Amino acid sequence: MATQGQVITCKAAVAWEPNKPLVIEDVQVAPPQAGEVRIKILFTALCHTDAYTWSGKDPEGLFPCILGHEAAGIVESVGEGVTEVQPGDHVIPCYQAECKECKFCKSGKTNLCGKVRSATGVGVMMNDRKSRFSVNGKPIYHFMGTSTFSQYTVVHDVSVAKIDPAAPLNKVCLLGCGVPTGLGAVWNTAKVEAGSIVAIFGLGTVGLAVAEGAKAAGASRIIGIDIDPKKFDTAKNFGVTEFVNPKDHEKPIQQVLVDLTDGGVDYSFECIGNVSVMRAALECCHKGWGTSVIVGVAASGQEISTRPFQLVTGRVWKGTAFGGFKSRSQVPWLVEKYLKKEIKVDEYITHNLTLAEINRAFDLMHEGGCLRCVLDCQV
Amino acid sequence: MATQGQVITCKAAVAWEPNKPLVIEDVQVAPPQAGEVRIKILFTALCHTDAYTWSGKDPEGLFPCILGHEAAGIVESVGEGVTEVQPGDHVIPCYQAECKECKFCKSGKTNLCGKVRSATGVGVMMNDRKSRFSVNGKPIYHFMGTSTFSQYTVVHDVSVAKIDPAAPLNKVCLLGCGVPTGLGAVWNTAKVEAGSIVAIFGLGTVGLAVAEGAKAAGASRIIGIDIDPKKFDTAKNFGVTEFVNPKDHEKPIQQVLVDLTDGGVDYSFECIGNVSVMRAALECCHKGWGTSVIVGVAASGQEISTRPFQLVTGRVWKGTAFGGFKSRSQVPWLVEKYLKKEIKVDEYITHNLTLAEINRAFDLMHEGGCLRCVLDCQV
Ligand SMILES: NC(=O)c1ccc[n+]([C@@H]2O[C@H](COP(=O)([O-])OP(=O)(O)OC[C@H]3O[C@@H](n4cnc5c(N)ncnc54)[C@H](O)[C@@H]3O)[C@@H](O)[C@H]2O)c1
Ligand SMILES: NC(=O)c1ccc[n+]([C@@H]2O[C@H](COP(=O)([O-])OP(=O)(O)OC[C@H]3O[C@@H](n4cnc5c(N)ncnc54)[C@H](O)[C@@H]3O)[C@@H](O)[C@H]2O)c1
Ligand SMILES: [Zn+2]
Ligand SMILES: [Zn+2]
Ligand SMILES: [Zn+2]
Ligand SMILES: [Zn+2]
Repeated sequence: MATQGQVITCKAAVAWEPNKPLVIEDVQVAPPQAGEVRIKILFTALCHTDAYTWSGKDPEGLFPCILGHEAAGIVESVGEGVTEVQPGDHVIPCYQAECKECKFCKSGKTNLCGKVRSATGVGVMMNDRKSRFSVNGKPIYHFMGTSTFSQYTVVHDVSVAKIDPAAPLNKVCLLGCGVPTGLGAVWNTAKVEAGSIVAIFGLGTVGLAVAEGAKAAGASRIIGIDIDPKKFDTAKNFGVTEFVNPKDHEKPIQQVLVDLTDGGVDYSFECIGNVSVMRAALECCHKGWGTSVIVGVAASGQEISTRPFQLVTGRVWKGTAFGGFKSRSQVPWLVEKYLKKEIKVDEYITHNLTLAEINRAFDLMHEGGCLRCVLDCQV
Repeated sequence: MATQGQVITCKAAVAWEPNKPLVIEDVQVAPPQAGEVRIKILFTALCHTDAYTWSGKDPEGLFPCILGHEAAGIVESVGEGVTEVQPGDHVIPCYQAECKECKFCKSGKTNLCGKVRSATGVGVMMNDRKSRFSVNGKPIYHFMGTSTFSQYTVVHDVSVAKIDPAAPLNKVCLLGCGVPTGLGAVWNTAKVEAGSIVAIFGLGTVGLAVAEGAKAAGASRIIGIDIDPKKFDTAKNFGVTEFVNPKDHEKPIQQVLVDLTDGGVDYSFECIGNVSVMRAALECCHKGWGTSVIVGVAASGQEISTRPFQLVTGRVWKGTAFGGFKSRSQVPWLVEKYLKKEIKVDEYITHNLTLAEINRAFDLMHEGGCLRCVLDCQV
């Protein structure tokens, strides 16, 4: 492409300071260095981790930065040594890298890759430990190794999933975070079996994807728990068979569920990020085998607790990051499943706006009616 | 036998009140009713659960009672409908019942049986919800469904493991609790694989049995952690390859272990009953896959805590009761393994006393040099 090797000036939403509206700026995006890929982002969605870091509550948040991690685009150019993608490839940037050679990748036990974490954790690229973004010469930090609230971004090659070009990028951008997280929590982390009773705390995108995954796994009962009764109608379409609103009960919610299920559920999923709900999710599990998976991300410094007897009598407490999916290997597989209509994606998209309207999109996210808002980045 | 159908008067150690010395009394033991088995106890060992209930700290402890749950004996007589054992059979009473027909037993996922819990939890027998023990007409509560600190006891038939009569009862009595708990925590609950790095917190009988189980499973490093340096010499014989005394370090023990193992251990086991050690045991696990198993029993009301991020980044928190072994099916198998010299038992026995000396045995238990003290009940 004509832009290869050049600095690209494009629009990006910059978070200059915590909790202040993002500002659409002309940003300079440097060319990719060795092992890096520059991507033209066509569509990005918003997720709670963006809002959390933006809020200033994340002690590891760095400003100014370009947020965003649920997106899809087309490779514009690649740096030296990059062999697995080339300009023109359709891709999803992945905040969980997959290098296939580090201790984590080779363990066969986890999707957490260690290769580029020391750089992505502090908002820079591995090669020179600097940012590829600047505004009038002032560097702007990367975020989660993805920074998709920009018309162009630079990511490590181990963080790029090449996908089928037949897939509509304005839909499959969602396969960059929330939907795989929910599906994978069920399929990879909990490994729910047919006939199981499942409880899902929080019926946002992640909770609904858990429901979808549980239905596909053959769960016999899928109990959705949310304090917002508006969530219940939508949830039926994703497989939820019963609803419980904690506000309708005086008893602790774990007791309500134990009573409702003759001893507790087989699997529970916390998809909110609330530590007291995490405890309830564990304690509503059946003695002897019930497994609870923490999916929600709690605010920094908060802790979970329970009586150890809960575990000694057979309950298991786990968590999941990106649903345990190996990003480069498995995101393309999820895209294929979407194309074959085996998983939903469109149904999670309740709003469409443009990158320029990103602050409105953040407002929407905090309203009950929004699941995912997709931003068109190129208009 | 001549005693069949008769009340037997024999010696038993009665705990009349919390924290007061046990008293050797002449106890009347009623004949077994339907589904019950009366056992002549030949040898019993002491375990921490006995001491805990005796101390009065167990809010579910009932007095007066006959404690004891790690023992071996011979069936004296059986009640109506008992088919799986008969007078003369060598048996180990099991505090985890196994009925093979309740929801728990049929699940294939747990060794916790629900059949007689509602009775054993409150110190009585299922049939008439009364005790079979009395002293001068005053009923004495059962304990854990076993009450082995007595020359005769009555237990439910689902709580009796029939074993090979070739096994020495003064040794295999240990297969009633501590040793299977440690072995099973490794084999059944954690499922440690060859090559794993294992950390064991607490090197009493249970911790040493974990070491033995980990060695048999092919663990590459077995790190023993104890505040009592006297434990270290013995521990070598059970498979511990490295020792850490938390008192020798200023850093939190989880950090010491993470540093020692390039990121954390694959499996950890808490064999003390201390909730802050339970946290350390989880947090010394390797990101991505480390699994921590709680084996120790904490005092009532105490809670475990951690940051949920520990689980979201792939650590798993579990617990175990009786090492996950199904009692009636698997205790006889453990006895066979002992007879084939595939597992140690004799090595855990540091002291031998008589039932009459039980208060001294409790004192010994609180001293560092004692692993298991076996009491001869019939002298
Ligand atoms: N582990 C991961 O890899 C990963 C990935 C993506 C998102 N997440 C996290 O998953 C969580 C859910 O994300 P989302 O996009 O679905 O969020 P969301 O805000 O759309 O959904 C949360 C739902 O929880 C409900 N809720 C709030 N408090 C509740 C309570 N006390 N009891 C019951 N329901 C309650 C809300 O009404 C809402 O419907 C967030 O914490 C997010 O950060 C984790
Ligand atoms: N889950 C079950 O089914 C089950 C069954 C049997 C026993 N248990 C429990 O297992 C635990 C261990 O039993 P045991 O018979 O081996 O006990 P023990 O007292 O013989 O051993 C405990 C060891 O922990 C060490 N220790 C104490 N505090 C420590 C600390 N802060 N850091 C490191 N080491 C410390 C002691 O020095 C001792 O060596 C007890 O809590 C017991 O109740 C559980
Ligand atoms: Zn996200
Ligand atoms: Zn890797
Ligand atoms: Zn015990
Ligand atoms: Zn049963």
